[in-house]
Amino acid sequence: MITSWIESANDAGLGFSLDNLPYCSFSQQDRSPRLGVVVGDRIVDLYLLADENLLPSKQALMQPVLNDVMALTKANRLALREALKGLLADQPGMLRDHSGLVEQGVHEIQNVYFHLPARIGDFSDFYASRYHATNVGAMLRPEEPLLSNYKHLPVGYHGRSSSITVSGTNIRRPVGQIAPGVGEENPRFEESSKLDYEMELGVYLAGGNLLGDPIKIDNVEDSVFGFCLLNDWSARDLQRWEYQPLGPFLSKSFASSVSPFVVTAEALEPFRVPANERPVDDPPLLPYLDSDLNRTAGGLDLQLDVFLLSEKMRSVGLEPYRISSGRFRDMYWTIAQMITHQASNGCNIRPGDLIGSGTVSGREKISRGCLLERNWLGDFGETVSSTNRLSLELPTGEKRDFLENGDEVILRGFAENSDHHQVSLGECRGRILAANV
Amino acid sequence: MITSWIESANDAGLGFSLDNLPYCSFSQQDRSPRLGVVVGDRIVDLYLLADENLLPSKQALMQPVLNDVMALTKANRLALREALKGLLADQPGMLRDHSGLVEQGVHEIQNVYFHLPARIGDFSDFYASRYHATNVGAMLRPEEPLLSNYKHLPVGYHGRSSSITVSGTNIRRPVGQIAPGVGEENPRFEESSKLDYEMELGVYLAGGNLLGDPIKIDNVEDSVFGFCLLNDWSARDLQRWEYQPLGPFLSKSFASSVSPFVVTAEALEPFRVPANERPVDDPPLLPYLDSDLNRTAGGLDLQLDVFLLSEKMRSVGLEPYRISSGRFRDMYWTIAQMITHQASNGCNIRPGDLIGSGTVSGREKISRGCLLERNWLGDFGETVSSTNRLSLELPTGEKRDFLENGDEVILRGFAENSDHHQVSLGECRGRILAANV
Repeated sequence: MITSWIESANDAGLGFSLDNLPYCSFSQQDRSPRLGVVVGDRIVDLYLLADENLLPSKQALMQPVLNDVMALTKANRLALREALKGLLADQPGMLRDHSGLVEQGVHEIQNVYFHLPARIGDFSDFYASRYHATNVGAMLRPEEPLLSNYKHLPVGYHGRSSSITVSGTNIRRPVGQIAPGVGEENPRFEESSKLDYEMELGVYLAGGNLLGDPIKIDNVEDSVFGFCLLNDWSARDLQRWEYQPLGPFLSKSFASSVSPFVVTAEALEPFRVPANERPVDDPPLLPYLDSDLNRTAGGLDLQLDVFLLSEKMRSVGLEPYRISSGRFRDMYWTIAQMITHQASNGCNIRPGDLIGSGTVSGREKISRGCLLERNWLGDFGETVSSTNRLSLELPTGEKRDFLENGDEVILRGFAENSDHHQVSLGECRGRILAANV
Repeated sequence: MITSWIESANDAGLGFSLDNLPYCSFSQQDRSPRLGVVVGDRIVDLYLLADENLLPSKQALMQPVLNDVMALTKANRLALREALKGLLADQPGMLRDHSGLVEQGVHEIQNVYFHLPARIGDFSDFYASRYHATNVGAMLRPEEPLLSNYKHLPVGYHGRSSSITVSGTNIRRPVGQIAPGVGEENPRFEESSKLDYEMELGVYLAGGNLLGDPIKIDNVEDSVFGFCLLNDWSARDLQRWEYQPLGPFLSKSFASSVSPFVVTAEALEPFRVPANERPVDDPPLLPYLDSDLNRTAGGLDLQLDVFLLSEKMRSVGLEPYRISSGRFRDMYWTIAQMITHQASNGCNIRPGDLIGSGTVSGREKISRGCLLERNWLGDFGETVSSTNRLSLELPTGEKRDFLENGDEVILRGFAENSDHHQVSLGECRGRILAANV
């Protein structure tokens, strides 16, 4: 680890050393958003450094969002990263010794506001955890938990980009149509009572193909800009009634939350691992979804945790309580497979597009990435009498099937090497507000 | 009809009189795109008129796309429309008599290129024709053509915005996964052989709500900016294999085509008609989807035609052949119901968002808006032995189940009043290119 003159960067457990260097969009009080890079517990102002001609790709850095940085070639992205490391390393250099710039351009994280880091063009959301798909499928269709296409292609769908919000934005409980109850003829229109989170990894794309041209799996690397945490909030009661035959719509589009930091592909390069091995009984992969590189380095070794903080816990001063912990390397489909599949029909990717991995769930109960699965709530929460049913109990003794108003869900994620040096994805937080009725 | 000094505007059958005045984004040779308005067979340069201070909302008009015009208040949109009518009417006035401006700023349509008229944020596509949903449902599920939610909510899903292209852009036949055939274990990855069009009406939105706030049905009016023709190209073989459980994805995302002209809500105001009456046996509407205004003026009286021009027809000099003709007033769900439903969970609309109506089909065979239905091709084109099966025959004697390479699909649409004065939506064209394999 290269040490930095920003001392908190050298705290291996904090996860924001010079090996990480995530980008963000931030602002102070009355000023407009600009780009920054996270170093320890500080945000370094990239607009200012670019304006002083201390960094390459100047124009791209002087924007309020990362899209132009995402559009840089891989070589230019690497050059920018190296230049940043040089400026921030603990050696005689322009920035450390330029007290004016340090004073103006290095801010404590708690003193800034964060904004969406990119203008997200298209958001597409996958379903890449076999455990998640099997668990949800088992509740809906015990006789056929995984549909016949699941092992052949990374199932995904288009999401809504207008309602993606940055961590810290409160989440209004949605109202919507809910299926007729037993003995009822017509649906009701009321607030959702089965509000859930979904812990996902988000992937910001760098672009890479024109309309009509697919992207080969081994060329996908250039299209991955970086990663974030993504909470794909879901109203299970709305979902159950609306989702046939065209898929989830209003049950998801009321809000999705992303963490403010974009951790680059370069920062996570040391944590690439072999793709999850396909069970021997699984069907063969079609060639466009298969490659040596994908098999040997298609996985990512990240830990993803979900915490909950209820209103009551907050009032008595309790810390957020961890309710699940998953590992991204357990995913059935790799990020490269999702991207190459999405582009296989010639659909074009634009810099700033966002892909969601789908709920990250593993084999163990603690690794289930949403309440529907974690509490085993049955047919989208309707059949709650299953013998497998669990109920989440918080340190206050409160119980939760689904989320209550005032509950805050906090996603955290990090990678860790054998020296216990972490690369952190930061946090993605959202608190539930009462419905607007 | 107010007459214009641009003579072709006064041709009632052409559909581009001063009662219409659709907006577009156009360019000439080496110049960058700017906004224009269509008058007869001419495009009038709005950048130039704004730059000469002849129009209100100057800044919004000096952009390459309509998003800032779409973001204007309804009052400002109306003021702009009135100012344009004044400049273009056949009476002594600044523009007619300003020969320099006329020479520089009025172009023949055939001499300009068209671009996407807006930066489309989110594209959502509905399924609002009961006839279409019933026809497709009958082929897939003869025992239950319409699912239980259909009559309660306008079913819709999120589409892809990156691959929306303007009329005239060629359409590359997609490749993708196709379900295992009889006796096969695994899917194939090959070019689609069941490529279809879908005739839809597109609706550009003007914005109108913040995240968390629904839009009441009677306030939706302010959120409708204007209309276009939309071809939601569909690969039925890809769709059949991929669409469960999250809906269509790659079977649609390879391309969607829109007409270059945006016909404003004001231009179509005289063609508002009562919403299609709900059959007495249908369930009651939930209150948020119902209003007097929607019942009395929720429909739109538009005729929408589909033409096909094959390579062979082109080579022997034949005109495009009309293969179907539908009426938008046959739709089960109104535009107001689609928008208010989409925003009912608090999902925010941004100026430039696009909504598709879903395939416009009516009761008669000639009014079926896609080949799957028109030719009654069975289970997404797999079961083609149905006794109801038809086959399209072109004037050359060529037959078509689905589209062949070289086929050009041309959508046209217009409204017509009792004096046979038309308001035209123009054309949306796309020609099929061989797959990239």
